[in-house]
Amino acid sequence: MPHNIAILGASGYTGAELVRIIATHPSFEIKALTGDRKAGLPMSAVYPHLRHLNLPDLITIDDLDDSDLDLVFCALPHATSQAVIPSIPSSVKVVDLSADFRLRDPEAYSKWYGKGHDAVEMQSEAVYGLTEFYREEIKAARFVAGTGCNAATGQYALIPLVAAGVIDLDDIILDLKAATSGAGRSAKEHLLLSELNENVKAYSAGGTHRHLGEFDQELSKAAGRDVRIQLTPHLLPAARGIVMTCYLKGDPQKVHETLSNAYLNEVFIQVLPFGEIPQMKDVRASNFCHIGVVGDRVSGRATVFATLDNLTKGSSGQAVQNANLMLGVEETTGLMLAPVYP
Amino acid sequence: MPHNIAILGASGYTGAELVRIIATHPSFEIKALTGDRKAGLPMSAVYPHLRHLNLPDLITIDDLDDSDLDLVFCALPHATSQAVIPSIPSSVKVVDLSADFRLRDPEAYSKWYGKGHDAVEMQSEAVYGLTEFYREEIKAARFVAGTGCNAATGQYALIPLVAAGVIDLDDIILDLKAATSGAGRSAKEHLLLSELNENVKAYSAGGTHRHLGEFDQELSKAAGRDVRIQLTPHLLPAARGIVMTCYLKGDPQKVHETLSNAYLNEVFIQVLPFGEIPQMKDVRASNFCHIGVVGDRVSGRATVFATLDNLTKGSSGQAVQNANLMLGVEETTGLMLAPVYP
Amino acid sequence: MPHNIAILGASGYTGAELVRIIATHPSFEIKALTGDRKAGLPMSAVYPHLRHLNLPDLITIDDLDDSDLDLVFCALPHATSQAVIPSIPSSVKVVDLSADFRLRDPEAYSKWYGKGHDAVEMQSEAVYGLTEFYREEIKAARFVAGTGCNAATGQYALIPLVAAGVIDLDDIILDLKAATSGAGRSAKEHLLLSELNENVKAYSAGGTHRHLGEFDQELSKAAGRDVRIQLTPHLLPAARGIVMTCYLKGDPQKVHETLSNAYLNEVFIQVLPFGEIPQMKDVRASNFCHIGVVGDRVSGRATVFATLDNLTKGSSGQAVQNANLMLGVEETTGLMLAPVYP
Amino acid sequence: MPHNIAILGASGYTGAELVRIIATHPSFEIKALTGDRKAGLPMSAVYPHLRHLNLPDLITIDDLDDSDLDLVFCALPHATSQAVIPSIPSSVKVVDLSADFRLRDPEAYSKWYGKGHDAVEMQSEAVYGLTEFYREEIKAARFVAGTGCNAATGQYALIPLVAAGVIDLDDIILDLKAATSGAGRSAKEHLLLSELNENVKAYSAGGTHRHLGEFDQELSKAAGRDVRIQLTPHLLPAARGIVMTCYLKGDPQKVHETLSNAYLNEVFIQVLPFGEIPQMKDVRASNFCHIGVVGDRVSGRATVFATLDNLTKGSSGQAVQNANLMLGVEETTGLMLAPVYP
Repeated sequence: MPHNIAILGASGYTGAELVRIIATHPSFEIKALTGDRKAGLPMSAVYPHLRHLNLPDLITIDDLDDSDLDLVFCALPHATSQAVIPSIPSSVKVVDLSADFRLRDPEAYSKWYGKGHDAVEMQSEAVYGLTEFYREEIKAARFVAGTGCNAATGQYALIPLVAAGVIDLDDIILDLKAATSGAGRSAKEHLLLSELNENVKAYSAGGTHRHLGEFDQELSKAAGRDVRIQLTPHLLPAARGIVMTCYLKGDPQKVHETLSNAYLNEVFIQVLPFGEIPQMKDVRASNFCHIGVVGDRVSGRATVFATLDNLTKGSSGQAVQNANLMLGVEETTGLMLAPVYP
Repeated sequence: MPHNIAILGASGYTGAELVRIIATHPSFEIKALTGDRKAGLPMSAVYPHLRHLNLPDLITIDDLDDSDLDLVFCALPHATSQAVIPSIPSSVKVVDLSADFRLRDPEAYSKWYGKGHDAVEMQSEAVYGLTEFYREEIKAARFVAGTGCNAATGQYALIPLVAAGVIDLDDIILDLKAATSGAGRSAKEHLLLSELNENVKAYSAGGTHRHLGEFDQELSKAAGRDVRIQLTPHLLPAARGIVMTCYLKGDPQKVHETLSNAYLNEVFIQVLPFGEIPQMKDVRASNFCHIGVVGDRVSGRATVFATLDNLTKGSSGQAVQNANLMLGVEETTGLMLAPVYP
Repeated sequence: MPHNIAILGASGYTGAELVRIIATHPSFEIKALTGDRKAGLPMSAVYPHLRHLNLPDLITIDDLDDSDLDLVFCALPHATSQAVIPSIPSSVKVVDLSADFRLRDPEAYSKWYGKGHDAVEMQSEAVYGLTEFYREEIKAARFVAGTGCNAATGQYALIPLVAAGVIDLDDIILDLKAATSGAGRSAKEHLLLSELNENVKAYSAGGTHRHLGEFDQELSKAAGRDVRIQLTPHLLPAARGIVMTCYLKGDPQKVHETLSNAYLNEVFIQVLPFGEIPQMKDVRASNFCHIGVVGDRVSGRATVFATLDNLTKGSSGQAVQNANLMLGVEETTGLMLAPVYP
Repeated sequence: MPHNIAILGASGYTGAELVRIIATHPSFEIKALTGDRKAGLPMSAVYPHLRHLNLPDLITIDDLDDSDLDLVFCALPHATSQAVIPSIPSSVKVVDLSADFRLRDPEAYSKWYGKGHDAVEMQSEAVYGLTEFYREEIKAARFVAGTGCNAATGQYALIPLVAAGVIDLDDIILDLKAATSGAGRSAKEHLLLSELNENVKAYSAGGTHRHLGEFDQELSKAAGRDVRIQLTPHLLPAARGIVMTCYLKGDPQKVHETLSNAYLNEVFIQVLPFGEIPQMKDVRASNFCHIGVVGDRVSGRATVFATLDNLTKGSSGQAVQNANLMLGVEETTGLMLAPVYP
């Protein structure tokens, strides 16, 4: 019998991506879709690409009947999740895709998000959703907080290296190239095609990007000491995808070996042969993350490239992967869709 | 037990798209991949996005063992298929994706392709692969010739209208907007991103595009008289997708009604409500075709928009749909992947 | 001595394009730039690409000192121009780039723009700014109304043909491909790069696009009878440029000859040899319009392609060309910048 | 009287860009254009965007009459320049745009370009064309070697810092984002729009990019000791432009102050206020280079962003700037074209 699912905030890109994935997922059935501003509309009015599916109309969160639900995906905007999730009955499992519960420490949350948290009591309950590193906790969890898409990409490159101590923890530089869908569907001048085509621009440079809160939390945990990386995001003229170029100090062969071993049994994390470089389009619309390692003519330097699709492995794919674990479904179910190329 | 499949010409875009689709197809198993220039290489060396799959290495066609095969997809370049297909044992079913067997008339072939056909005897054997209109013949066929991607798009818009006689057959104008992957992976100056970004250019205008041979053949058949349309293709700064804008003389409501009725029970052909316009991205990487009809302030004029993904419904998705029918598998198997948006 | 110029609405794309052109114009000096919402800011804060120029800061229209001005470019949003222009002293010449004064007939304005005109008395004063067809009137004018960018493109293809009677006036079909900057800089969901990349979508189909008001007015005037064309606009994944594909009934050679003769002495309108097709990128960021004519296998059909840059020849370049004429400056001054390719 | 100019290799992108710039240059007159494979064709057959210009037809180099020439721009492919330039009469000045004479040391040339140099005797004659740092030498030169476009971008960011000793010379990391036109117009699979749209890929990573030879030569010269940087190039889905993100160890305010002072009187190098980040599109089709500096939460780290248009300031604009100096023309002549935005 399929598990009954609801998606809160289905009118955003991560909501639409959840529907896309679940459309061919054999064990999940979508019982409700909420979208407060679009309530009353069929999903096909908001996302015509889903018109072939037999989906419930969009409703308000207030109209949601959660009595028969097994799990709720919460794809609401940041700061909205923390207002909604506390009122979901504890019998319903929750996978949150917002930024609200990624940081366990209320002070860290305040620092990075500029406001106090409205559900402090639930911050520590949420399991951090980086599946490959929290698998057992996620299986047992009632509430999982999805990671930032950029934070996920960087962590796939870094966590095994930081944990193994094979790189200099005080000199980690991440150059991020990110597509626009990570910024969501809301209309903003700098996200217009007119502005971005034939353009590239850095933003939130200098240590101000909010995903640094996650890096600080998780890398420090992996290292057993404080780790503070540099991260410089750049916006690309592309809709989907992330490439993280990581400049590290360490032996490149050892770096490659450490990553290869760490992900040997991970279906979705593909470490390329030493010296090969992954490209963004090779993971498009899939749950895969490709990682490559190269050395440098400057000895003792390693460059690690990690790429994934921000909407799939970076958010909605990850969310389904976690939901599978939480509901006792085989972890890869519905997620083996091959990347779309070209 | 899965059906044993081989893909000839797996190193091209339609070959890669076949692999992508079959990757999650429960009844097909890929036993061989050929690619003469890439023979000896793993598929992941040619298409790294497929590296998570356990695929056979590329071999030459000469090295193909066809003893256990149930069906061969032939994704070879135009003019190559006609040299290869005659030597495939008759026990093996064949779906050709090239242009070689789309035209039944040797003279028509010579006219549009500028050379005599090397396998004239097989031209009439090949069933034209426009599934929705040749379903029964395809079920019974040993050999199916896939349609041109542009020809498919236009025919989905036109065939029911031409058959029903609700439009003027002597004044059909098709304005085609086509993405670049339809031109394949071979390196040509005019397909460079440098040339095409921020660009649009018509090509093969004036009645010279080869897909007109298919339009002539199929529309004339549907009409029971000769039909000669105008077709003006434009190349877009995009990798995947086709939009066909069809300028027709006829009553727009009747046009819409005719199309709606024709596709009422077709899963993959979605006719939008009257007045709604489909967009190219709404069928991306899927086997769906969206069709919209609008009227005009000039009475008696109807504009029909049809859009599909040239690599999926326009070629490899169509090929799998036909293979399903030929092998007795449920027609939609492996093809219900939802479009990728945004 | 240079002519003193002001630009009202300098924070929009056409305003910025005016500054770009005037930056190397030897006879114009920018004395004031207005932008109500950006008043107080340096222009480089709104458009950093202009930071090398010594420009006046943005001010409100109320703060504009028009005592020493020779000419004002009014690049305000539609419906705003009609409120502002009546109060400009009659000693100052005006080139309007908005849609407010393109239609001479108040009823036509109401019909296409859905509201009554607030400066009806000035509607008939405004000279329609399609330079090549209104040159003498523009030279003598105090007030010129710039054309719609799409309307200009189509008219360059059609006016000589309509005037010469070499095409069927009752069967003119225009398929428009337009880049996004024509829609301006304001943030709208459907103009996001996430939405438009790898996409194409028709809009305002069926005879509802506002530029049809201009086509009706000017083509009917050229023909000496009512002319009503079909126009179907499509939005492209590109920032700049317009391609208009015109499906006409008439002798293609005669069509080509008529256009070639009409533009023989026009610097900016380049008619290609018969059978050659212009591409959008070939006029990028320039004041040129390229026109090509092809015949068809269906006899008596001609396809005309016209392309120009919506922000240059389609609006700000045209505006400068007209201002040159109005101020007695050589017409091509500042406008011979070669197109940017690739 | 204008200076007589010839462009060798006019059928490539840098050749076309030279023509575009010279089209509005008051002191240069194009007397000859060569293009061996396109000889006999009008330039408009190769580059229709230049059709409004009255240009000489393309000829072979052998047919070039150099008797009246003042200066030759040599935009030939790498390794071809060294065969051609020695036979140009010494009375004709030469600006080379290829890579052939950028490195003064024959051994360095062999190392980076994998072959011996065919005109070793001229290697030391060539003045390195980074105008702002070799202005006096260029004024006096007969032969100037244009820089690599990526090398120019990085050097604008680094040279003043290296010379002033305000950054750690042993830890300089450059993350390069480069558009496709830098790779020229020749048809290569990885440059197809199908491959690159919605994609980003690093290439020549690990210290193998040829422009490193220039960095080594020039940075070591500026520092007075060997400097070996890291450089990781990434190919963008865009036709024009370069963004270089430089990760440096040093005081960010001091870095900004050093750069601001260094370029205080340079027209084309614009240093933004501290903390502001330049974007690629802001220098499009212009001779400007924008530089921004930000600090980081990790103290002692500075990130410098430099952006320019590879075809203009990165090659053909630089070449004209140098030619101006060599011919005694005011340095900025023909180069003040404002960037094209959006």
